[in-house]
Amino acid sequence: MSRSSLDALVEALRRLPGVGPKSASRMAFHLLQHDQEGARLIARALESAVQQVHHCRRCNTFTENEICETCLDPQRDASQLCVIETPADQAAVERTGSYKGLYFVLMGRLSPLDGVGPRDIGMQRLFERATDGHVREVIVATNFTAEGEATAHVLSEGLKARDLKVTRLARGVPVGSELEYVDLGTIAHALVDRR
Amino acid sequence: MSRSSLDALVEALRRLPGVGPKSASRMAFHLLQHDQEGARLIARALESAVQQVHHCRRCNTFTENEICETCLDPQRDASQLCVIETPADQAAVERTGSYKGLYFVLMGRLSPLDGVGPRDIGMQRLFERATDGHVREVIVATNFTAEGEATAHVLSEGLKARDLKVTRLARGVPVGSELEYVDLGTIAHALVDRR
Ligand SMILES: [Zn+2]
Ligand SMILES: [Zn+2]
Repeated sequence: MSRSSLDALVEALRRLPGVGPKSASRMAFHLLQHDQEGARLIARALESAVQQVHHCRRCNTFTENEICETCLDPQRDASQLCVIETPADQAAVERTGSYKGLYFVLMGRLSPLDGVGPRDIGMQRLFERATDGHVREVIVATNFTAEGEATAHVLSEGLKARDLKVTRLARGVPVGSELEYVDLGTIAHALVDRR
Repeated sequence: MSRSSLDALVEALRRLPGVGPKSASRMAFHLLQHDQEGARLIARALESAVQQVHHCRRCNTFTENEICETCLDPQRDASQLCVIETPADQAAVERTGSYKGLYFVLMGRLSPLDGVGPRDIGMQRLFERATDGHVREVIVATNFTAEGEATAHVLSEGLKARDLKVTRLARGVPVGSELEYVDLGTIAHALVDRR
């Protein structure tokens, strides 16, 4: 079998997180045999996302504009800034409908062992954002994992040193879990009980 | 957040088998945040595989040529034809190094409940291929699952009716399992003991 472009596809699919050689192989087979339209769709969606998606200049989340819709929304309370790890976590908080402030998205968490330092999570940019004169409270809503807690600690110290009120989600959120997978009621409750 | 092309990407990634909304979301985040080169690689690999990969005119496996390298290999024994479900199964048989004949790849199995009939697995093409005058034995090596066994039964009847010797891999292969995941020794043994 001359399978160079098939091999290349299997190899490329392994770049997806959580996909090993067997699943990459199954994915390639499925797309080529049963869903070539899907294959083209994924290819186009990847090209266009890579080309068009940037980071919001204010909150760092993914957006196709200079500044994202949330940051531009005049209805949001500019005195509150919620710091979260990922856009998925932000979406989870948004779904509760109980937070009306703004966000800063770290796009990660401190993880010295993986070489993820303060620069990678935009710590300096967060400090600048939080000291814009409007923000009065920063809710540090990183995940309640070891790395999330360590990140929260470092950020809180830096924010407090800049005379900002810093709160953390209440421990209604189960320890060891990630916001993305927590039910809405728990997140809503933890927002009210923030400390 | 204006996330149209991000949403489109998440939606597109769900076309991959076994990928739900949460993993699609994680994949999109990972690629955009940490591996844009990987994203471009996958996109190009998909485009090129869809464009270049066809089915071998003789054995039906994936190839970039009219006829695949295995079918063109003069060293292979043209009197034996091994019928398997997928290219991954063929690769598993090849890795044993104990089969020197040719192949016919069904690219699936009969599955009436999913609407997969004889036409979808190229049954008529198999019968034509097997009656080329060179093939003397057809080894039906579909998986030992319910659908694989049913497929083997239907194919064997049709092949026997055409005066071909039909064998099946010995039951060294664990029942209920799929060839792709069986260790090489077991497959090699089952080839020798074919019945
Ligand atoms: Zn923003
Ligand atoms: Zn071939």
